[in-house]
Amino acid sequence: MAFFKNMLYGGDYNPEQLPEKVWLEDMEILTDAKMNSATINVFSWGLLQPSEEEYDFSMLDKIVEMLQKHHFQIVFGTSTAALPAWMSHRYPDVNRTDFYGRPHKFSHRHNACPNSPTFRKYAPRLAGKLAERYGHLPEVVCWHISNEYSGECYCENCAKVFRVWLKKRYGTLEKVNQAWNTNFWSHRFTSFEEIVPPNYLGDGIPGDKASFAGLSLDYNRFNSQSILQNFIDEKQAIRKFDSKTPVTTNLMGAYKPLNYFEFAKEMDLISWDAYPSFDTPASFSAMMHDLMRGLKDGQPFMLMEQTPSQQNWQPFNSLKRPGQMRLMSYHAVAHGADTVQFFQLRKSVGGGEKFHGAIIDHVGTKDTRVFREVTQLGEELADLKDTLLDGRTPSRVGLVFDWENYWGLEFAIGPNVELKYVDFLHHYYQEIYRRGIAIDMVGLESDFSQYDLLLAPALYMVTKEVAEKINDYVAKGGTLVTSTMSGLVDEHDNIHLGGYPGPLKEVTGIWVEEFDAMPTEKQVPVAFLADEVAASGTLLCDIIHPQTAEVLANYRGEFYQDTPVITCNDYGKGHAFYVGTHLDTRGMARFFDEVLRKVGITSEAWPEHVEVATRKNQQGTFKFVMNHQEAPQKVNLNFSGEDLLTKKTLTGEVTLPSYGVFIVKVNEEANS
Amino acid sequence: MAFFKNMLYGGDYNPEQLPEKVWLEDMEILTDAKMNSATINVFSWGLLQPSEEEYDFSMLDKIVEMLQKHHFQIVFGTSTAALPAWMSHRYPDVNRTDFYGRPHKFSHRHNACPNSPTFRKYAPRLAGKLAERYGHLPEVVCWHISNEYSGECYCENCAKVFRVWLKKRYGTLEKVNQAWNTNFWSHRFTSFEEIVPPNYLGDGIPGDKASFAGLSLDYNRFNSQSILQNFIDEKQAIRKFDSKTPVTTNLMGAYKPLNYFEFAKEMDLISWDAYPSFDTPASFSAMMHDLMRGLKDGQPFMLMEQTPSQQNWQPFNSLKRPGQMRLMSYHAVAHGADTVQFFQLRKSVGGGEKFHGAIIDHVGTKDTRVFREVTQLGEELADLKDTLLDGRTPSRVGLVFDWENYWGLEFAIGPNVELKYVDFLHHYYQEIYRRGIAIDMVGLESDFSQYDLLLAPALYMVTKEVAEKINDYVAKGGTLVTSTMSGLVDEHDNIHLGGYPGPLKEVTGIWVEEFDAMPTEKQVPVAFLADEVAASGTLLCDIIHPQTAEVLANYRGEFYQDTPVITCNDYGKGHAFYVGTHLDTRGMARFFDEVLRKVGITSEAWPEHVEVATRKNQQGTFKFVMNHQEAPQKVNLNFSGEDLLTKKTLTGEVTLPSYGVFIVKVNEEANS
Amino acid sequence: MAFFKNMLYGGDYNPEQLPEKVWLEDMEILTDAKMNSATINVFSWGLLQPSEEEYDFSMLDKIVEMLQKHHFQIVFGTSTAALPAWMSHRYPDVNRTDFYGRPHKFSHRHNACPNSPTFRKYAPRLAGKLAERYGHLPEVVCWHISNEYSGECYCENCAKVFRVWLKKRYGTLEKVNQAWNTNFWSHRFTSFEEIVPPNYLGDGIPGDKASFAGLSLDYNRFNSQSILQNFIDEKQAIRKFDSKTPVTTNLMGAYKPLNYFEFAKEMDLISWDAYPSFDTPASFSAMMHDLMRGLKDGQPFMLMEQTPSQQNWQPFNSLKRPGQMRLMSYHAVAHGADTVQFFQLRKSVGGGEKFHGAIIDHVGTKDTRVFREVTQLGEELADLKDTLLDGRTPSRVGLVFDWENYWGLEFAIGPNVELKYVDFLHHYYQEIYRRGIAIDMVGLESDFSQYDLLLAPALYMVTKEVAEKINDYVAKGGTLVTSTMSGLVDEHDNIHLGGYPGPLKEVTGIWVEEFDAMPTEKQVPVAFLADEVAASGTLLCDIIHPQTAEVLANYRGEFYQDTPVITCNDYGKGHAFYVGTHLDTRGMARFFDEVLRKVGITSEAWPEHVEVATRKNQQGTFKFVMNHQEAPQKVNLNFSGEDLLTKKTLTGEVTLPSYGVFIVKVNEEANS
Repeated sequence: MAFFKNMLYGGDYNPEQLPEKVWLEDMEILTDAKMNSATINVFSWGLLQPSEEEYDFSMLDKIVEMLQKHHFQIVFGTSTAALPAWMSHRYPDVNRTDFYGRPHKFSHRHNACPNSPTFRKYAPRLAGKLAERYGHLPEVVCWHISNEYSGECYCENCAKVFRVWLKKRYGTLEKVNQAWNTNFWSHRFTSFEEIVPPNYLGDGIPGDKASFAGLSLDYNRFNSQSILQNFIDEKQAIRKFDSKTPVTTNLMGAYKPLNYFEFAKEMDLISWDAYPSFDTPASFSAMMHDLMRGLKDGQPFMLMEQTPSQQNWQPFNSLKRPGQMRLMSYHAVAHGADTVQFFQLRKSVGGGEKFHGAIIDHVGTKDTRVFREVTQLGEELADLKDTLLDGRTPSRVGLVFDWENYWGLEFAIGPNVELKYVDFLHHYYQEIYRRGIAIDMVGLESDFSQYDLLLAPALYMVTKEVAEKINDYVAKGGTLVTSTMSGLVDEHDNIHLGGYPGPLKEVTGIWVEEFDAMPTEKQVPVAFLADEVAASGTLLCDIIHPQTAEVLANYRGEFYQDTPVITCNDYGKGHAFYVGTHLDTRGMARFFDEVLRKVGITSEAWPEHVEVATRKNQQGTFKFVMNHQEAPQKVNLNFSGEDLLTKKTLTGEVTLPSYGVFIVKVNEEANS
Repeated sequence: MAFFKNMLYGGDYNPEQLPEKVWLEDMEILTDAKMNSATINVFSWGLLQPSEEEYDFSMLDKIVEMLQKHHFQIVFGTSTAALPAWMSHRYPDVNRTDFYGRPHKFSHRHNACPNSPTFRKYAPRLAGKLAERYGHLPEVVCWHISNEYSGECYCENCAKVFRVWLKKRYGTLEKVNQAWNTNFWSHRFTSFEEIVPPNYLGDGIPGDKASFAGLSLDYNRFNSQSILQNFIDEKQAIRKFDSKTPVTTNLMGAYKPLNYFEFAKEMDLISWDAYPSFDTPASFSAMMHDLMRGLKDGQPFMLMEQTPSQQNWQPFNSLKRPGQMRLMSYHAVAHGADTVQFFQLRKSVGGGEKFHGAIIDHVGTKDTRVFREVTQLGEELADLKDTLLDGRTPSRVGLVFDWENYWGLEFAIGPNVELKYVDFLHHYYQEIYRRGIAIDMVGLESDFSQYDLLLAPALYMVTKEVAEKINDYVAKGGTLVTSTMSGLVDEHDNIHLGGYPGPLKEVTGIWVEEFDAMPTEKQVPVAFLADEVAASGTLLCDIIHPQTAEVLANYRGEFYQDTPVITCNDYGKGHAFYVGTHLDTRGMARFFDEVLRKVGITSEAWPEHVEVATRKNQQGTFKFVMNHQEAPQKVNLNFSGEDLLTKKTLTGEVTLPSYGVFIVKVNEEANS
Repeated sequence: MAFFKNMLYGGDYNPEQLPEKVWLEDMEILTDAKMNSATINVFSWGLLQPSEEEYDFSMLDKIVEMLQKHHFQIVFGTSTAALPAWMSHRYPDVNRTDFYGRPHKFSHRHNACPNSPTFRKYAPRLAGKLAERYGHLPEVVCWHISNEYSGECYCENCAKVFRVWLKKRYGTLEKVNQAWNTNFWSHRFTSFEEIVPPNYLGDGIPGDKASFAGLSLDYNRFNSQSILQNFIDEKQAIRKFDSKTPVTTNLMGAYKPLNYFEFAKEMDLISWDAYPSFDTPASFSAMMHDLMRGLKDGQPFMLMEQTPSQQNWQPFNSLKRPGQMRLMSYHAVAHGADTVQFFQLRKSVGGGEKFHGAIIDHVGTKDTRVFREVTQLGEELADLKDTLLDGRTPSRVGLVFDWENYWGLEFAIGPNVELKYVDFLHHYYQEIYRRGIAIDMVGLESDFSQYDLLLAPALYMVTKEVAEKINDYVAKGGTLVTSTMSGLVDEHDNIHLGGYPGPLKEVTGIWVEEFDAMPTEKQVPVAFLADEVAASGTLLCDIIHPQTAEVLANYRGEFYQDTPVITCNDYGKGHAFYVGTHLDTRGMARFFDEVLRKVGITSEAWPEHVEVATRKNQQGTFKFVMNHQEAPQKVNLNFSGEDLLTKKTLTGEVTLPSYGVFIVKVNEEANS
């Protein structure tokens, strides 16, 4: 069941920054663009609560009334992502202390210490008051708590709460000492009071390394959960007055500090903000959308923010090319979005985001390219009504993404400073993506059995439970692909003794004796044994001893020349592939030819820059045919049906315009 | 009327660092070099006031006496640019707090908090005592207050004074909130006490960006004015005892934090320190000299500091080549200097500048290349007497340089991180410079009507008053060149709503809908419509709608292909050109061919590296013919007259030696 | 007399991080590898002293007992390199304050303020207790105090102790003011209390520059001596209970902050940790070994730490290639090591070094390449018994390495930011090294008369005493090579007035008038006068006036074309060469051909990557023939004798395997 009755089309609106006489003009302009929703009240705490004792909703009342009058659906912010100045001044406990130990003053936004008693008192109180006042309105279709939760705090109060958190997690100090292996470097704690947050003044290292990864992992967990608790605080306050309206907060793709799978459990629906750079590949955007879709096991998400054209905080803020915003919007939909929303509806007159794109530019009129493109899209979406809502992506391939692995892998000092979790995963994603095969991004708690193929590269941290789950998955017929830097540590970042890849040794049928680290640019030749296809490896080279595994490819250089680099192990009814290096694209292509053949998944050969993605709902199966380039492109469709946008029936060779998109409702008979 | 009766030739001298027996030797050496002046007492506070209660002028008396005896003119420092150690220790309020919130201890120099009550008490007291004691001496030709004012402070006391400053500037808090658009990011202040300085702990961003540019601009203004107040404090203290001797402080070209146009109003004459790097183009040095000359509307300045040869604080401190120091000295004179002074007369024995060049090197003798070159120059200057003093530069072209624009443009987050104010302006300067056309660097308060052509590129911040002034200038027949990133904001960094370039829309006759930002190296082809001359644009590409303007050139690439990039608008009796991108040199050449034709200014075709600059005074018109390269160069003069240095009459083809210079007193009849 | 009865073969062992059941397995594994020693108790303070009142040696007793039982020699750590958590928490004076003035909390290791009263009370107390308990054991062959002493502290207490140190060093404040030339920048102190440590908040500059090098030099001396005092504290505590066992601490090559020549005086024997990067040239490793050997005038050292294969804290932690660890071990022995020890015997299960290589890997078995290589080496060493112990390196060439010069040169602001002390020296080392000529790295207190050739390039700081010593050395027949940036300052970093190279003017017979600084990549042609061999100079170019010196080579470019760049002066019975630039390798080769001919030292022409090094002891002369590359290499030996490793007699052409090594006991008759 979809959350919305139609696709939400709108975005952030901040009329409190504008003279009231502009409000009505804006309403008309936005209505002309077929906008049907507005996200409001995102940063208005200072206005809503001008002092500790006072609340003033008069302006917000006007804004809501105006939106009601113009039939806008409202995504209602709780305004707690930026503190009021008086609070920062009167109660310094709300201000964060940074990684270098500097207590901040009133500054920017996203500035609250998550464990501040003052913040935890007043933020939910405000959310409750908003729910009480506006929650009953039919126009309020979603609560948006805070905004882009982010960052971390290392203040003295956080240190205290962290110690309480540790007591609860571990029970005894002895267990903490064991978990963190504190006999290393004389770190044995004799009292919880001796434990300090792992920032620069403690055991943290700039650039995300850590002397005691166990401690730093726990602090990441603690910080992520503390911020999540802020979300829960407000959600509970809302629920006292509004039991139904879905509650969300806008996420940020692979944002590292927060464990979004934990967040997802508390969120009614996922929303996120997509801000690719001018040179972000479409495959990376697709992976991020898929990750957001994966947070709640395939449930559609809100594309809460994207820019209509220009960003402002990138080094180079290029314009989206004509058609590109429309394509990117449908790209999100193709991967799971049920809304197309923008930051922002109106460019602000001042402040750090005044050069960030908007539907209504500083010129204040409709006579802009951006507005025309937004309007075209609005008309299309209005025409589509609910056709595409609540779709699901049929996928036989899962790719594991796990925040604790992300943290752990990058905390590790060694073996190669260029090893980055998200990039490493994207390398696998990209290979599947370019073959036109759908992927689900899955967490470690997901049901693996729904996938014929499970990719889990760089699965550095593998608990006993996860290992059992993976073994079970393969034993029952699943196919696993894992890689170098997998199976190394447990949840405390302590090594699984007995040989790499630890608890994955059995399923992969190998023992990794050593891993060589390559400096930038150094490549080691690799060859596939069956056909002598040549490729190369970079970054890391595992030295592998197959136990029960079959060898698919060997190194052809270095002292480990002619030893295995890629293996496949039969395990129960399934198979486990292991890739001991970072393969070049040629190697990836050759490798996945074999993997996909084994699992019986067929690749599709779309032209470069063309992507075809599928969503299914009760109204049918929809193929999104997308051209991610600034030039037309011929495509030979292997399905046919009506393009929902042009109403034309498409079949065989068709031409996609520059940044063009077709949404083909598949003629099931013709394609069955 | 010239400030000095002859050209001051000397520099910083610190005998307090030397044994007294060396003093007299130095005097003779310097006299042999025809030195006629010494800048003294620049960093001697610790000696002059050995404790809070005591002053001790005994050594300074000796120094002054010795200089009098040797007929030196004295530029008298007030010594307040470096605190005494006891003051830093006893009154920590004198120490600065930096951008990261760190309170500093006794350190380096230029180290006083400008709002420190202690500093503001003792600095003018010292200046007064000096004026009282030495101000009546005929040898004292100039007071030099402090030294290279610089930096900023973010201490708690500055925060308090800033709040007072804000109250005075804005009257009410509501006006502050409006000015800074504090409804953005919940920044509404409910009390002045809530406002904190915009450093790293507040709304500042490392690398000079700002979340709230309105706030940061005000803090820059406040800091610049606070430091200026330090200057005024001392000047007033001097004036109590010495009503006539001109007062200055040495500036540093385009030094960003201080608004030198505001300083200039309080300074009797401008002095500055010229320290080009080994690869600084001559055009950049020329622009800096012109800026210094422009600070007081063409009044000659003091070249207070330059190195005789080597610097020490650059990454690579190459020697000035034979003749290069002499050329650079005359280069300064050609652009407005009435003095040629050095840092320093004697190399210090220890401390952070011991490897900085001097007239008298560590060897302590006259037998050095540097000394010989200095002596040659000294003899020439002695021979020139007052011939060149108090000259003016006849110029028909003005280039606007404005500190508030400098700050505002670079505070902006977006659109392109590579956009830098001074570089952007130098690109225009360079094109005029290479044509042998004189330029005045002008502030926004200057009288534009004296120029046939006014260049105002990247004029980001345009107040209503400035817009009217520009409109008026053009309407009455002036020709304006402006560019992308102009007319965007008001004095609070709030956008002029209604379309770019805001208040310059009418005079330019265009509307800029969007600006595309280019990553490094990306170029967009450009073509001039009249002749299809091809060029290219980088950095930013405006998308322009001409309203009343004529189109001179179009883009020839990107989606805005065949739309205007350069326009010209007739407005009243004048014209306004608009350049929508950062043109390459070919584009600049073609563009200014057209502009200069329109205003009737003729370019001169000097060989590369040759510059000809003009100064006029009551004694005549002087053409400085300069060869900025280490090789001889033939030049065909289009004027004739006597070279003041060789006494030869020059006409037609002449050969400039390597780094050579002629100063031709133009035979007015022959050239009329 | 050798310190050990056989070559120590072992390394760091931390069984306290392992379950006891593993201990015995490990003992057997290590015994199989012929390990005969273990370094224990390096980071166990937290375990040994679980609270201020309690000591608990129970686990350590067990470890020692086990090692005794397995006949291991013990290098006994004192465990004071990492504080216990309770101490950091209860007595914050033990925590360091960093360069930016941030007081640290409990963090990492090497974390004690050297002047902390708490640390100075408890660290020696622990050392004493250990000596009392274990010092009598015959297995204890060496005390290892702390670990890799490093870093610096800038806390308030250090500031106080620094002032006491200054009073002792200078007696009066006036002498401090003179030494630091405090009349520069008004730095005159009127009370010791006004002096603050030269960190970022004072006169320090990030990147190792200093405004007042005299002050910063003194702080470096103070900090180095403070840490050395920590060593002495513990050594004295040990000596109360153990009067004989040698005491050491592990050094780190050319580690900048600590003056190892001063340390060496207090250490019974030198030990050090060798961690080359994947691209460190063998010549650099050789230079570091030679420096360690030089610290105690040729006395053999312990190779306390090296990795069996992989490091973890480098950016790219490549594996040591097969044979490479063995070669590197013998390389150390060839340059003076009497032990071959590893960090570490067992890979730790958690903490920041868990990916650092070990004899026993996480797999926990002997079945690894690394273990097999370690075992081969162990068998060889066992077989060699004491044959190689207590050898000396016969050397006719000394290269001066001096920490005060290192500090002073790099504190200097100017003339060229790319001038780095160790690299500059290595450039000279490398040229001698590639000729197969042995070098001693010598301090300024060494006896120069033992060398035919003394290299002292970049000898920036030359006291009167050092100058006299050098003059005397040359006068008596020695040959000196010095260079640009020599003789400039005294021990306070004050310039020797009267011309460069100051007190070396007489011996070099030249006066350097100026030094030009070259930007990166800029080269100046150079030619040798005798044969017109062409070379080039970079970095710096001195402009030289020969007084009594002969000119060997001239510049052939820049304005100083045809002026001298290399000179040689006859002085007494000896000669002093001066090199006025940084020569390219061709220039170095040509120059040293001449220098070595003059002193009658013959070069040997080994193939690239082949090194032959000699040690002599009472048992004979041993030639280490080493192949520093991953490929076999033919070598023509100019000596013959038995290879101690293969027992074969080698003579004439032999083939070194990849990373191969021969240790030839030279047949003295055949080679005489």
